[in-house]
Amino acid sequence: MTQKAESGLDIDLGNRCSAIARGWAGKTHATREGRPGEHARQRGAAYSSILAFGGQRLAITSDGIGTKIERAERGRRYDTRGWDLGARGVDDLAANGVEPTNLTNILDVDRLDERVVDELMRGLHAAASFAGIALSGGEIAELGSRIGGWGEGMHFNWCATAIGVVPQGNEPVDGSAVAPGDAVVAVRSRGFRSNGFSLVRKVMTQAFGERWHEAPYEDGRSWGEVLLTPSLVVSPLVAKLQRQGIAPHGIAHITGGGIPDKLGRVLRARGHGVQLDELWEPLDFMQAVQRLGNVPDERAYRQWNMGNAMLLIVAPADVEPTLVLARELGYSARRAGSVHPEPVIRLRSKSAGGADLSYPVSEDGGKA
Amino acid sequence: MTQKAESGLDIDLGNRCSAIARGWAGKTHATREGRPGEHARQRGAAYSSILAFGGQRLAITSDGIGTKIERAERGRRYDTRGWDLGARGVDDLAANGVEPTNLTNILDVDRLDERVVDELMRGLHAAASFAGIALSGGEIAELGSRIGGWGEGMHFNWCATAIGVVPQGNEPVDGSAVAPGDAVVAVRSRGFRSNGFSLVRKVMTQAFGERWHEAPYEDGRSWGEVLLTPSLVVSPLVAKLQRQGIAPHGIAHITGGGIPDKLGRVLRARGHGVQLDELWEPLDFMQAVQRLGNVPDERAYRQWNMGNAMLLIVAPADVEPTLVLARELGYSARRAGSVHPEPVIRLRSKSAGGADLSYPVSEDGGKA
Repeated sequence: MTQKAESGLDIDLGNRCSAIARGWAGKTHATREGRPGEHARQRGAAYSSILAFGGQRLAITSDGIGTKIERAERGRRYDTRGWDLGARGVDDLAANGVEPTNLTNILDVDRLDERVVDELMRGLHAAASFAGIALSGGEIAELGSRIGGWGEGMHFNWCATAIGVVPQGNEPVDGSAVAPGDAVVAVRSRGFRSNGFSLVRKVMTQAFGERWHEAPYEDGRSWGEVLLTPSLVVSPLVAKLQRQGIAPHGIAHITGGGIPDKLGRVLRARGHGVQLDELWEPLDFMQAVQRLGNVPDERAYRQWNMGNAMLLIVAPADVEPTLVLARELGYSARRAGSVHPEPVIRLRSKSAGGADLSYPVSEDGGKA
Repeated sequence: MTQKAESGLDIDLGNRCSAIARGWAGKTHATREGRPGEHARQRGAAYSSILAFGGQRLAITSDGIGTKIERAERGRRYDTRGWDLGARGVDDLAANGVEPTNLTNILDVDRLDERVVDELMRGLHAAASFAGIALSGGEIAELGSRIGGWGEGMHFNWCATAIGVVPQGNEPVDGSAVAPGDAVVAVRSRGFRSNGFSLVRKVMTQAFGERWHEAPYEDGRSWGEVLLTPSLVVSPLVAKLQRQGIAPHGIAHITGGGIPDKLGRVLRARGHGVQLDELWEPLDFMQAVQRLGNVPDERAYRQWNMGNAMLLIVAPADVEPTLVLARELGYSARRAGSVHPEPVIRLRSKSAGGADLSYPVSEDGGKA
């Protein structure tokens, strides 16, 4: 569950339900002890479950693209949503230093539309090809009135499970190797990820009414088009870094809860913090949404990635090779800051507000 | 996609959409060739995707419990639905001779209700414990009006991904070892599986109106209670058979499309057929639904499992040890028939109709 207070959802209830689910799941882990599928101990940031199969360690993670689908329905354009679905899974694996290998997907629809299914799957194929993974199974379920959505046409919910391998000779990345003096490299994002869209929608509806997607954005495109910007997939950068012998000490995939939550989870493994003076600027349209909604920087950084898709914590000597490789692979990356011993995330907002912000690295990863 | 003509869904459209999805997925498989996550060649019945990770072969499959959830909503009882969700995944793996090890789940809800989440997860925990698997990740997503359902309270859709291992020294089971003279052992089911419920609902609504779940069944329980009967999980029987050195030649997990489709897929690997004179009788309430809907036996066997959860094709000498082990583990199993060279499934209906039925084993597994 992610922080959703801004969108009117009950965070505490969500956290309690997640805790209930985790509780029941945890009781089952002993059943695989000493057998294939045994859970590895995970003390730091767990973006995925690490499982041992003989000498091979795999990881698995499941997620959906949630309410972001509404953007496709409003724009009547579906071929970019596969990037969102793919990015969720493979970049969560990458954040644990896992090389993604395969992905399955389940598409729940109210009724079928061949053209829409084709566009969705074409996009997922493109994202999978980019990430170097195989689509290894899927299911389309017609659920009638159990599925709803915006406007006319086929409505759907879409989720996926990604698996991957911990490269031989490597340990999973979970933040436990983070040390004061380490550098933070920020990889630039292309837009909002799947999370935080409930707030985006609320802001847009208040600003432009129910048909906000038709409102013009300043560059001449409609807001609907602007917000269709697909997610960036960063996992190939992490995999290639590892193949070159560069082992990040911690990786934060910035999704729900933003940098305070997702980097906080990585930092709490050692109880350190960071000073981030040179994060990427939020994309122009992201800042425009923030302005429209009068969302203070402090909250915006808790809701959205604010221009940063992934933060890599590396040894100082690894900064330059990381930036060079990122450039070679077409990513925008830069040194954004460094690790200090105090358990606090301090960052200079790159939004118009420009405030100096501070978030605690608490027991529960900085969650409110 | 499963056959749903009886419930008014467009089978051809469903098949075309599935083919589109498979087409895009297939184009990605080459990307893992010679690397972890490589697809194994699968010629026979593929209930799951078999993937190679070094010397270890794993399998993965994703599925949801679809419209069967409505039964929980009508009965206001949620703790048995985890058995349906768990059974789908682990028994699909078992049908390929794979030992299930881990399962992730995604619960999409309109709004959260702690009590319902707790009941659902308690049931999934029970099914996982029975199957000897670990629950290794999950996600709860609040999707508001994107999720609908019956009556008051929390509505949800629930899907899962199961993974498992091909036991060392074994080959995946896909029907390619099936030979004339082999025996078919039928494991008895406890009720309708997740599939085919659209037809059940249609029949019940026509017979008893919108609040059919409150109508009394002949044993004094309500129809709602009767139809909550949770799925049986058969994977532990298959795993234990394999550990005892008994290798089934083919395994059919009877879900959507019934015996004609699911056994057909197994048989088409070699182009043989079966004569099934001693299948289990459909459960009383299953026959009652059939009578209420005037569903002819021929169609009923295409829609429902008709009392048979799984069919195991084994060498004649393995029948007795299979039956003994099944009894030890608490399953009801019996020899139901045998394999013959002609590509046709002949079965004697065990429903009141008692007809002799015949279904072709065609290229596409007997699908209409």
